[in-house]
Amino acid sequence: MESALDCIVCFVRQALDAARMTSADPSVHEGIMRDVLQWTSKMDLKTPPPVFGQHIHRRLRTLTGSHDPYREIKKKSNRMALALLPGLRQTVETAADPLVMALRLALAGNVIDMGVSSSISSTDLQNAVDKAMTEPLAGPLAAFQQALRSAHTIFYLADNAGEIVFDRLLIEQLGAQRVTVAVRGAPVINDATREDATQAGLDNLVPVVDNGSDAPGTLLDDCSEAFRHRFDSADLIIAKGQGNFESLNTVPKNIFFLFKVKCSVVAAHVGLPQGAHVLAVPGA
Amino acid sequence: MESALDCIVCFVRQALDAARMTSADPSVHEGIMRDVLQWTSKMDLKTPPPVFGQHIHRRLRTLTGSHDPYREIKKKSNRMALALLPGLRQTVETAADPLVMALRLALAGNVIDMGVSSSISSTDLQNAVDKAMTEPLAGPLAAFQQALRSAHTIFYLADNAGEIVFDRLLIEQLGAQRVTVAVRGAPVINDATREDATQAGLDNLVPVVDNGSDAPGTLLDDCSEAFRHRFDSADLIIAKGQGNFESLNTVPKNIFFLFKVKCSVVAAHVGLPQGAHVLAVPGA
Repeated sequence: MESALDCIVCFVRQALDAARMTSADPSVHEGIMRDVLQWTSKMDLKTPPPVFGQHIHRRLRTLTGSHDPYREIKKKSNRMALALLPGLRQTVETAADPLVMALRLALAGNVIDMGVSSSISSTDLQNAVDKAMTEPLAGPLAAFQQALRSAHTIFYLADNAGEIVFDRLLIEQLGAQRVTVAVRGAPVINDATREDATQAGLDNLVPVVDNGSDAPGTLLDDCSEAFRHRFDSADLIIAKGQGNFESLNTVPKNIFFLFKVKCSVVAAHVGLPQGAHVLAVPGA
Repeated sequence: MESALDCIVCFVRQALDAARMTSADPSVHEGIMRDVLQWTSKMDLKTPPPVFGQHIHRRLRTLTGSHDPYREIKKKSNRMALALLPGLRQTVETAADPLVMALRLALAGNVIDMGVSSSISSTDLQNAVDKAMTEPLAGPLAAFQQALRSAHTIFYLADNAGEIVFDRLLIEQLGAQRVTVAVRGAPVINDATREDATQAGLDNLVPVVDNGSDAPGTLLDDCSEAFRHRFDSADLIIAKGQGNFESLNTVPKNIFFLFKVKCSVVAAHVGLPQGAHVLAVPGA
């Protein structure tokens, strides 16, 4: 997906928010802002939005000298989600359609996004769960169910810390034996890395690989060869979160995107309101 | 007032909004964005915010080839406000304290600001009037009344088209014979120029001068010598709108600012919430 001019406005705002969240030093705030303004002034708008996020957060890590400024926030998100897990699992197992319920809850977990809001509480998370029970699930559900029936291997691209705990429920419904989970190759915002997969207990359930990249999405050219090989050979790919949609929505593969619409640009792109819960395929 | 980093985020957003409002050509939108990003990346943050507004709108006028892209919007605002004028005048004349009521209505008029919102309807305007009746008027009202008692000459710095009609009511209460009104020297956003003063009927009531500048505020160095002379020699200056506050709040003169707080940066600066109606003096 290309970037809109509205994305630039959002990157500038995000850069300032992220700088303030990760450093108390005004010179860091000003430094990142000047860098982002200068850089975006020359950017090719054909570039997908996650490239901007990657640049901003690389620069922020350099300026703050912190390899992983969101580490504590990620740990906290994982803990909060793990506390909900037993109850959520029961909800899935007693649901009329456990797969659809697990899809709904995986979408609820997508509310944990520090690129969009700067903090999340247990109450926010519980509200997201409650909302996901009734929120319409837009998209080709029957085609997804059909794809699941025929797939031998499923490559599951995770999104954020905390959210990855919710993903466990869906992976259990998909059949863990055919699933491999991919996380980011290095910290960026609160996106899930290997450390989060371990905290979420995913590594005991399925093979976990990392994509070799520090983009808040999946920029195939920036991913490791090992990741691309798995991506190319999987029967079915499930990609969580808007960042994965923004970076893979034009890739002609058997991908189902699962995300909450978080901005007006993607809302206009998919023809659904902000906040909508979406199941989508490439080309959407 | 210096600019905050938050102001930069706002300028970038304003530039895009203004470009879309004044041109349907995507290359104009992209051109102004790239220019503003490049320019703000190097800006001295000691610069008051109206300098950014001046730059953005100059550039926009060049790119669109339109000397006054907001002309029709300004005319419409003046017409809408003139339609309300007889009723509002009656409200002032029958009020327990006509001066305070006129102050309240002059503040209500400050809602007509195309730098902040892209359109305003008669309903918005009526709602603003209704709100102004009960909204607390923060600031040194007694000092203002005292200053009015001793001033022989009052220099009234107008803000926006439409709003300038509401200013008539306050000028009538101040005593038109001692008031001179200043408008912007050239079109910028929907700020009032001579044309608006004429449409509002102000030129039949008081002398109208222009400040020689196209900034959406009063940057003294950018104003004409004639304007500065009047500014320096007036017993009392009344400056309408946040742009005038942002550009004159450190000038040690007998100024009373009258404005609605329109952003978080100014809200933090004056210690009042966004939307508050403020009467303030320099140093506030």
